[in-house]
Amino acid sequence: MKPSPFAPANLPILPPISGVRFATAEAGIRYKNRTDLLLAVFDEGTVAAGVLTQSKTCSAPVLQCRANLAANGAPARALVVNSGNANAFTGKRGADAVAITVAAAIGATGATHQSVYVASTGVIGEPLDPAKFTGLLPQLAIAARPDAFEAAARAIMTTDTYPKLATRTAEIGGVPVRINGFCKGAGMIAPDMATMLCFMFTDAAIAQRVLQSLVSRHAATTFNCMTVDGDTSTSDTCLLFATGAARARGQPEIADIADPRLSAFSAALHDLMRDLAIQVAKDGEGLSKFVTFLVTGAENFAAARKIGLSCANSPILKAAIAGQDPNWGRVVMAVGKSGEAADRDKLAIAFGPHQVAEHGERAATYDEKTVAGYMNGREIVIGIDVGVGSGKATVWTCDLTHDYISINADYRS
Amino acid sequence: MKPSPFAPANLPILPPISGVRFATAEAGIRYKNRTDLLLAVFDEGTVAAGVLTQSKTCSAPVLQCRANLAANGAPARALVVNSGNANAFTGKRGADAVAITVAAAIGATGATHQSVYVASTGVIGEPLDPAKFTGLLPQLAIAARPDAFEAAARAIMTTDTYPKLATRTAEIGGVPVRINGFCKGAGMIAPDMATMLCFMFTDAAIAQRVLQSLVSRHAATTFNCMTVDGDTSTSDTCLLFATGAARARGQPEIADIADPRLSAFSAALHDLMRDLAIQVAKDGEGLSKFVTFLVTGAENFAAARKIGLSCANSPILKAAIAGQDPNWGRVVMAVGKSGEAADRDKLAIAFGPHQVAEHGERAATYDEKTVAGYMNGREIVIGIDVGVGSGKATVWTCDLTHDYISINADYRS
Repeated sequence: MKPSPFAPANLPILPPISGVRFATAEAGIRYKNRTDLLLAVFDEGTVAAGVLTQSKTCSAPVLQCRANLAANGAPARALVVNSGNANAFTGKRGADAVAITVAAAIGATGATHQSVYVASTGVIGEPLDPAKFTGLLPQLAIAARPDAFEAAARAIMTTDTYPKLATRTAEIGGVPVRINGFCKGAGMIAPDMATMLCFMFTDAAIAQRVLQSLVSRHAATTFNCMTVDGDTSTSDTCLLFATGAARARGQPEIADIADPRLSAFSAALHDLMRDLAIQVAKDGEGLSKFVTFLVTGAENFAAARKIGLSCANSPILKAAIAGQDPNWGRVVMAVGKSGEAADRDKLAIAFGPHQVAEHGERAATYDEKTVAGYMNGREIVIGIDVGVGSGKATVWTCDLTHDYISINADYRS
Repeated sequence: MKPSPFAPANLPILPPISGVRFATAEAGIRYKNRTDLLLAVFDEGTVAAGVLTQSKTCSAPVLQCRANLAANGAPARALVVNSGNANAFTGKRGADAVAITVAAAIGATGATHQSVYVASTGVIGEPLDPAKFTGLLPQLAIAARPDAFEAAARAIMTTDTYPKLATRTAEIGGVPVRINGFCKGAGMIAPDMATMLCFMFTDAAIAQRVLQSLVSRHAATTFNCMTVDGDTSTSDTCLLFATGAARARGQPEIADIADPRLSAFSAALHDLMRDLAIQVAKDGEGLSKFVTFLVTGAENFAAARKIGLSCANSPILKAAIAGQDPNWGRVVMAVGKSGEAADRDKLAIAFGPHQVAEHGERAATYDEKTVAGYMNGREIVIGIDVGVGSGKATVWTCDLTHDYISINADYRS
């Protein structure tokens, strides 16, 4: 797998988050000579919030996370993640594998059943043998360290070409707090693999229901505005763990989403989630270009997002972008097929700084050579004003290339 | 453009339909050395029924057809179709081009404004100059012949690799009637081209509202169960013209959809539409395989169709099929992302005669080598039982290949 052209030259260094420790191991679940098991251990008092796949065929680990998040207060003491096998569509055996993993994590960390979170990513439909890794958990619990974010991010990779890491700081009531996160994948990006997994950590002291509101709200404008191929995984999992350690440094606990002291944290969390979502799109399978759709003038945000995703999931438009063709007719098509209100006679489209269509027809100033030159760039921004309201959304994706076909048409072996 | 592996060795010969005549010409709208203009002329008494694109950015010709179909009785005297330019997203000039075309057709055929149907297929956003072809309509009206179906089908092609023709017969009240049809394209199948156009003709005498019901009903299970790339065109047009000429041969006019004498005709029409839809999928851009999804056990037909289309529009699943990989995990994913009810623990999947998954996990009899052998075939049938109800649907598509990318990433020139 050749690296994405957007693979960063240097990875960000994530500082420790008080109350969070990591350890990784080579369990040999599917891969050889690389880590494929992650244990995160949280101090008592840590709470979790998150969003999970909407798939009707979700994996067994997703069911465990969903039950935990619904439990009173959503306490979190441990997170176990494996790569190489998604434990999805594995029937009763899949549920058993989760139960065995949870039991082992309880034994290793002192967690309760409801405070163990699990996630699996890799092949769908292949039974996951938990005996391959549960025996490693006690030693990982002992070895866990607070400065192992990069190692953690690497252990959960499937066919990602680089680990995706981000860190932010914010003040709450004058007390600095940190947010770190890492993630992998994008939709069904990889050969026989699934899943977008994202794990975030903060030392902030914030009531669980407030955390949950923040994650849900920000997921709508970050991860849910990003697509590689439109294929929702059985395993998508995005979790935020808050240890509350900043309480000891005088951070006033936030119990109300409307508390103005929360705004800097909320903005920092949004920025971190946006950063990670963009990193995922920039590692989309086989991509040659990163593409941003800026949709304005829609009925509301949901309509604008749907229009943006209709464009971002159009194979024919994405293939044109790969071919460096400013084929704006395909943007018109994708807007039209979204089903959302658009005024054909006010629709305006720009490729970067170049207006290509306005008032429902080709712009008078349109010069194909100029716009074709713009399409040679690595990062393409397409502005779409649909002319009916004030709703707007930003959607990120990549182009559809020969390499995507090669990667996904290769026979599993 | 290399021909589809499914291009027929011999085209069907369509017999004349009393009351329908065709003529074609090389108008040079975009292509050279091929016909790109079709005029169909209908005898007085002909009525039309049809379905049109749901796109919010539909073309100017679609608006003309929509208005005609809504007019009292939907009379039809002329149909003008051009290829090479879709007259879509062309603003006021596009509407003017339709008006000029309609006026020319009225002059050439004696039609009224409401009885002229128009369709255009080709580049989106490029102004269509009607002066290139309106002058040809009078001579075409004189030259029109009843036996020119293949020539008509060829004139409306864009990047189709073969013309798509079908014919059926049925009896109504003991009197034989004919249905002929031809069509082109599939979704946004071609470089910078758009559109699925389908035109059907019958000599049956059937009330317009009954015809309309038949076309709408049958489109739901034929053309609307077929996809190449999921991209709805701005111009999709499917029209059935009924001359009523069989009335003179004693055919009792049918005025009620529930009339039992209509059933053979209805079945024949459905079969013809299904045949044409499959021909379109078999000419999908760059395809190497024709794929059928047989969905059963859904809540209802609409749910089953949505599940089938979710599979048929999944780039990652279609790329796996191109790679001859029996990657049924991607079928699980596509079922899950459809949003329709499915019972994960009853879901069953078969590739051809081979059961690959049942009771929510891999089938005990699954043998990857056997199923991989099946995937080497040209025609792939994937059965999916989602285990919740009795709704079923059949959806047709093709695989996603390197050639699709090559065709659509080529710069327009």
